[in-house]
Amino acid sequence: MRLASLLGPDLKQVLKEDPEQVRELLDEIHPEDLADLVGDLDADEAAELLARLPAEAAAPIFERLDEEEQGEIVEVMPAESVAHIASEMAPDDRADLFSLLPESVGDAILEKLEEVDPEAAEDVRELEKWPETSAGHLMTTSYVAVSPQASVRTAIDAVRAFSEDHHENVYNVYALDDGGRLLGLASLRDILLASPLQPIDEILHTNVISVTPSEDQEEVARKMAKYDLNVMPVIDDKGVLLGVITIDDIVDVLTQEQTEDVQKLGAVEPLDVPYFRTSFFTFIKKRGVWLFILFFGEFFTQTALRYYDPVFDAIKGAAYYVPLLISAGGNSGSQSSTLIIRGMAVGEIKMTDWYRILARELGMGLVLGVGLGAFGFARVLMYRDQHVDFALTVGLTLVGIVVTGCVVGAMLPIVLKRVGLDPATSSTPFIASLVDVLGIIIFVQVAKVVMVAVLASHGVH
Amino acid sequence: MRLASLLGPDLKQVLKEDPEQVRELLDEIHPEDLADLVGDLDADEAAELLARLPAEAAAPIFERLDEEEQGEIVEVMPAESVAHIASEMAPDDRADLFSLLPESVGDAILEKLEEVDPEAAEDVRELEKWPETSAGHLMTTSYVAVSPQASVRTAIDAVRAFSEDHHENVYNVYALDDGGRLLGLASLRDILLASPLQPIDEILHTNVISVTPSEDQEEVARKMAKYDLNVMPVIDDKGVLLGVITIDDIVDVLTQEQTEDVQKLGAVEPLDVPYFRTSFFTFIKKRGVWLFILFFGEFFTQTALRYYDPVFDAIKGAAYYVPLLISAGGNSGSQSSTLIIRGMAVGEIKMTDWYRILARELGMGLVLGVGLGAFGFARVLMYRDQHVDFALTVGLTLVGIVVTGCVVGAMLPIVLKRVGLDPATSSTPFIASLVDVLGIIIFVQVAKVVMVAVLASHGVH
Repeated sequence: MRLASLLGPDLKQVLKEDPEQVRELLDEIHPEDLADLVGDLDADEAAELLARLPAEAAAPIFERLDEEEQGEIVEVMPAESVAHIASEMAPDDRADLFSLLPESVGDAILEKLEEVDPEAAEDVRELEKWPETSAGHLMTTSYVAVSPQASVRTAIDAVRAFSEDHHENVYNVYALDDGGRLLGLASLRDILLASPLQPIDEILHTNVISVTPSEDQEEVARKMAKYDLNVMPVIDDKGVLLGVITIDDIVDVLTQEQTEDVQKLGAVEPLDVPYFRTSFFTFIKKRGVWLFILFFGEFFTQTALRYYDPVFDAIKGAAYYVPLLISAGGNSGSQSSTLIIRGMAVGEIKMTDWYRILARELGMGLVLGVGLGAFGFARVLMYRDQHVDFALTVGLTLVGIVVTGCVVGAMLPIVLKRVGLDPATSSTPFIASLVDVLGIIIFVQVAKVVMVAVLASHGVH
Repeated sequence: MRLASLLGPDLKQVLKEDPEQVRELLDEIHPEDLADLVGDLDADEAAELLARLPAEAAAPIFERLDEEEQGEIVEVMPAESVAHIASEMAPDDRADLFSLLPESVGDAILEKLEEVDPEAAEDVRELEKWPETSAGHLMTTSYVAVSPQASVRTAIDAVRAFSEDHHENVYNVYALDDGGRLLGLASLRDILLASPLQPIDEILHTNVISVTPSEDQEEVARKMAKYDLNVMPVIDDKGVLLGVITIDDIVDVLTQEQTEDVQKLGAVEPLDVPYFRTSFFTFIKKRGVWLFILFFGEFFTQTALRYYDPVFDAIKGAAYYVPLLISAGGNSGSQSSTLIIRGMAVGEIKMTDWYRILARELGMGLVLGVGLGAFGFARVLMYRDQHVDFALTVGLTLVGIVVTGCVVGAMLPIVLKRVGLDPATSSTPFIASLVDVLGIIIFVQVAKVVMVAVLASHGVH
């Protein structure tokens, strides 16, 4: 990294003028750093450079580019060159590339790939079958497998043969029966420490933790984190090994899912690319949609306030307390929803826990509401022009609003998940709008009970 | 996992009655699953069970328990037993244990550990020197090292010797000079594929990516994700290898940091334990603090509204629009702050980018504000009792408020970071309160310009 930032501008010049040198540089510089440099070039320049490189040197650079950069480069590169690079890419990165391309472009390249490397084309079709965020889509079909009758020496030879063709890491050797069913695995350490003539099945771990291809990537991430695994085998319902998921992809998944969750909580449609890479127009779209929906929802506060006009007319200054009161509901609601949404995301909270959560949040809302209510009561009394009954109205309203905020904030994500929606989607601001309207109703209803005399003298009942 | 859930209740019985059996079970069941079961026992039962186990069987279970469970067990377990278990724990997990114990308890155990395993005690002191979220604190001092003159066979022997004493994974063998400086590394695959008589320095990778012990764990996570590393060496400024950080710890760091960030965004002080494990009182404390601070801040909306009483008195119904208008500011502000906070957390946005962000957010606020303003203008006109000048006031106020929300929301996290505070801490609700008060001021100032005639007729200027 230090090397790349040092050489930056010069290296870029070299890359442009003499792309053959990149091959030598690959030994010296991490492909990630070369990808950073290639990513800084225009799509035309980058495409020309990559096309002129031998495919096995271009692939490790290309697969490390952003999705957006990959898309732009593929657009201007001949399908033939793309197919050659694709044939050298890791199977999972290759499948990702095809799933991001427009269908017409992807089909043309897949046709070329069929000629260059029929096996790779078949792989793409296999992995594309699975939904985008599933284990099947995330897995790679590159792994080292031997028969259970093999010796440790045969396993070493298999690792050697694999390493000549692939630049991916190897962690384990898998033992498969004739039907491709996973019997067990041996780590490289197990193999290193065994005698070469030993049969592999003597050192196999047979109690293997695995996932099915339809499992969600977040669930895979949770299991790998729990069991400290570096590779997770993916097997079908017959026990046949379909592929493996490596930890580096899981780290990317975790970061990406977290970014999406945070953006959804902040009422932004998830962005696919970093802040500065996102175009102005995309931002307007991704933010505007939610801003309009929430604005529309918030209009009901105005409707409610107008509806209760006689009450606010009768209690001088009461309307000025509305923003204060309803924000207490919004804040307690966003606390609860944040806790529940995150708890569900990391698997600590299940939908079936709803009644325990309801009980807790009711209790918590009551304690926090009484605390805030007492504070509000005292604060209102400090104004000379406010009466005790209005202070009491504010205090009791706060209890009601905070309880409502906690309960709605905690239950809505569970309801959303129950009906198949993503609980993170804009829950926090949506809950705030909902609780705002409920807060106004609570305020008026409390006032009607506590300040019945004042209201009656203004003809409000 | 399936095995554990199947055997659950029975296994728990066995564990209680005949802890010696656990040793055999360790071959069959992942220690993680045993830890799940031990975690379900009372602290007394768990302590008794673990103390009766051989330390090398107890350690892998104990180190997988939650921090809270570990703390409770240590409280009721003799210091001698804890020291024995600690001597068998991975150095990084051991250091974590000591950093969570109260000083008096920790010191007593460290004294015992000094007798049992002086090297382990020294390790704890080494790792505890570094701040809690630094690379130095996260690293483990267990790794396999050889001299650069060693043969591949010697390296294999070193891996073998390491594996007999340690249950951690091995990824690489490090070559160190006489002063302990890191010269390069060879992966297990490199070693497996080399000839045993080959000198190790022929297969070393010398261009090693590393971190310093004071680097923040999030920065380490970013680098490991970028370069797809499974292990990151930690070296001091002289190049001496101090330890290594493994990817499984990074996965935990990512999840934990993310949970904290989300909770902070939701105005909850970060919890250290899952939702259902957190006590009611802890929740009240962690939520109450922010709820009170925000409530106090929001009181200024009431102060501002009272201050502008003559204006709201003159424009009938204007006060009813306040919640609607200020919430648009809060929502656009939380969108901006979410984007910036997350961008800074993943390293896409730097503080020095502030002017580019300011320019973008100003533009975005203007476009979104004009859109929302036009919508608001049209909506108000639909009421027969509202005049064009009031509709115009609402529209223009929305433009001003959304621009303010975007700018404040984007800039405040940068300012907070600049002065050394965590930008995630309650930014979103805090920004909402701030923008609420600013929104009221904008509303009144716009009204004073647009509706000058109406206000003048009520004696307001």
